[in-house]
Amino acid sequence: MDDTTGEMLGYTMETLLQAGALDVSFTPIYMKKNRPAIKLEVISEEDKADQLQKLILTETSTIGLRLRKAQRLVMKRKNLPVETEFGIISVKEARWEQIVKYAPEYEDCRKAAREHGVSLAEVYRKAEEACYQTEEGKK
Amino acid sequence: MDDTTGEMLGYTMETLLQAGALDVSFTPIYMKKNRPAIKLEVISEEDKADQLQKLILTETSTIGLRLRKAQRLVMKRKNLPVETEFGIISVKEARWEQIVKYAPEYEDCRKAAREHGVSLAEVYRKAEEACYQTEEGKK
Amino acid sequence: MDDTTGEMLGYTMETLLQAGALDVSFTPIYMKKNRPAIKLEVISEEDKADQLQKLILTETSTIGLRLRKAQRLVMKRKNLPVETEFGIISVKEARWEQIVKYAPEYEDCRKAAREHGVSLAEVYRKAEEACYQTEEGKK
Amino acid sequence: MDDTTGEMLGYTMETLLQAGALDVSFTPIYMKKNRPAIKLEVISEEDKADQLQKLILTETSTIGLRLRKAQRLVMKRKNLPVETEFGIISVKEARWEQIVKYAPEYEDCRKAAREHGVSLAEVYRKAEEACYQTEEGKK
Amino acid sequence: MDDTTGEMLGYTMETLLQAGALDVSFTPIYMKKNRPAIKLEVISEEDKADQLQKLILTETSTIGLRLRKAQRLVMKRKNLPVETEFGIISVKEARWEQIVKYAPEYEDCRKAAREHGVSLAEVYRKAEEACYQTEEGKK
Amino acid sequence: MDDTTGEMLGYTMETLLQAGALDVSFTPIYMKKNRPAIKLEVISEEDKADQLQKLILTETSTIGLRLRKAQRLVMKRKNLPVETEFGIISVKEARWEQIVKYAPEYEDCRKAAREHGVSLAEVYRKAEEACYQTEEGKK
Repeated sequence: MDDTTGEMLGYTMETLLQAGALDVSFTPIYMKKNRPAIKLEVISEEDKADQLQKLILTETSTIGLRLRKAQRLVMKRKNLPVETEFGIISVKEARWEQIVKYAPEYEDCRKAAREHGVSLAEVYRKAEEACYQTEEGKK
Repeated sequence: MDDTTGEMLGYTMETLLQAGALDVSFTPIYMKKNRPAIKLEVISEEDKADQLQKLILTETSTIGLRLRKAQRLVMKRKNLPVETEFGIISVKEARWEQIVKYAPEYEDCRKAAREHGVSLAEVYRKAEEACYQTEEGKK
Repeated sequence: MDDTTGEMLGYTMETLLQAGALDVSFTPIYMKKNRPAIKLEVISEEDKADQLQKLILTETSTIGLRLRKAQRLVMKRKNLPVETEFGIISVKEARWEQIVKYAPEYEDCRKAAREHGVSLAEVYRKAEEACYQTEEGKK
Repeated sequence: MDDTTGEMLGYTMETLLQAGALDVSFTPIYMKKNRPAIKLEVISEEDKADQLQKLILTETSTIGLRLRKAQRLVMKRKNLPVETEFGIISVKEARWEQIVKYAPEYEDCRKAAREHGVSLAEVYRKAEEACYQTEEGKK
Repeated sequence: MDDTTGEMLGYTMETLLQAGALDVSFTPIYMKKNRPAIKLEVISEEDKADQLQKLILTETSTIGLRLRKAQRLVMKRKNLPVETEFGIISVKEARWEQIVKYAPEYEDCRKAAREHGVSLAEVYRKAEEACYQTEEGKK
Repeated sequence: MDDTTGEMLGYTMETLLQAGALDVSFTPIYMKKNRPAIKLEVISEEDKADQLQKLILTETSTIGLRLRKAQRLVMKRKNLPVETEFGIISVKEARWEQIVKYAPEYEDCRKAAREHGVSLAEVYRKAEEACYQTEEGKK
């Protein structure tokens, strides 16, 4: 898309996510006639596809869309609340075969950082610490 | 492609479009050994594919290409000439189900901007105004 | 910065803007050892510089900052409320020497688009129309 | 700039170069509210600065510009026509202290490639060959 | 991926290439909540896919992967050693139908440039010269 | 630079870092005639500037360079070796006014990850844990 503004695209991303898109991203590209442009990519479940297509055609200037079915491998996710000095933080556990990893929930961390006047990095660190201690305690 | 220069790529884009490619774009990427590179993407009708593949293999340094059939959803396009103080400007109407949108034709606008010594934005604005007045007059 | 995550950077942008930065942007770059990285640029008034520097050093992993005084040319801005079928929309007028241009206020347009169930583009169009009619009426 | 389209930017680049800018480039960046944007950079001689500033403010949506004097180190350039099987090609010689390098003139190469139905790379190669043979012959 | 650092990604690229991936690249993208992110793309033969998937899930923070079979058109490659004043340099010949092109082997050129204290461009040039002389001698 | 290949640029980055540049980065940009290009930025101490300029002019196709003195704010750095189950890892401590942060040394972590067959993320985590325990122990 070389004739939709960044403002319109920011609005479109917000609208697509509210409407249930799983993932929305912008990739900077270069098109003919020296036009810097953006490739908009949207991942969604099949049943939402029609609605999201309409959204894109309405809110952006694009004349066409490419549609592609994708095979996805997704790790099993579980929510684990952990206690930290900043309160309870949700941690997302992801498992696939032997692989396990943990990631603190962004919105919880952000809220805690603002409330306690500490850096976001510090909240993440404490949440990860608590989480790994819990998990290692279980073993 | 990490061993074709920007000059060669600019020339390749021009050549591909002249040969009938529907769309050509460059995406900046990063490859091994600290090489900034470009991903060249070409969309074309199936019957032009062979010719465009030869073009890419001849004009760039690439050793291989990935080929993929894509399902496309394209809005119905129609040309509407509108009268403005800068002369006749073509406006492209695009329709799909309930969605209708208009976009002034770039080349006409550019020519008018240069001839009348006004900004391209002003020509676009007048063309859109005239276009929406025409369409709303019709209702 | 090649060792701060996108999540942390998104949080940092939000925090810098809240703290009074005039402008914050991310530029994708490539660094040594095949590291994709981000260049964070912040524009601010001189009196806010210290506070924003502290913020960057606290919230990101960066060890250093480059500081530069910049000479800026800024157009004179004025707010013009215009009436549209979607309610009152603020339009920003910008003037410098002979150059005048108008841009509808994003937040007003967004609110109107959501309330009236129309595309953001349509709200922008009506706001621009109303604005230019007002201005041309004045002449 | 997050509210100028790619089409407008392509037109602006063309206009700036015609007006005498030495160099014009677009850098993809990311701004607040999820807006993909473009940073427009223009290099020019000081005496052209005012005219180019007006152009940018007229043709794009930007409200302000940053101005910076830059110290430049430029190699001494000379034009060397060389004979190739595709006709005469201009080659640019660049010298600075002990460093000498040659680059075939793009427009000549492009013309020759089209006229003779060969790849641009082949024309470049022959022009470089002829050029280095000439230079080495001189030694 | 918006929560893996550039350092981790650089390490991941190295590990994937060691494990037999044919191609690994990073594309800068922009995701929700103002997060600059990276799209990691890996091309591999089918039999290596499982192993590389495990690697990506282990070394990065990603929760899921998209998998896609691709049809590839690859030119026939052959290694041609050529003699230059800097020693023997391998040149890769690539053929497909009528198209033939040559590219000096990077690692050989790099080694020669360092050993002989000349620019990489000069080594490439001599290697290409030698290569085309050989090929044209054969005709 | 729109006429230097990614291979040459990767080599140039390596050479500049070996020659003592503090920082080298590539920024993808777009230039005239549809050329995707790269902006090469090098930060160095003043006494190395001449040598690095020569390197750039020799190894790349660029005809000119922009030179700029920059004012830098750099945190005080110290090396702290910490003991982990993977051996001794160096951790970099950075201090400025009230701000303190720690970052495990990449090369040590990488070596440990390979030797012990664990993910790089796990080594980083253990090193950070050990580091913060040490620091908090000191308080």
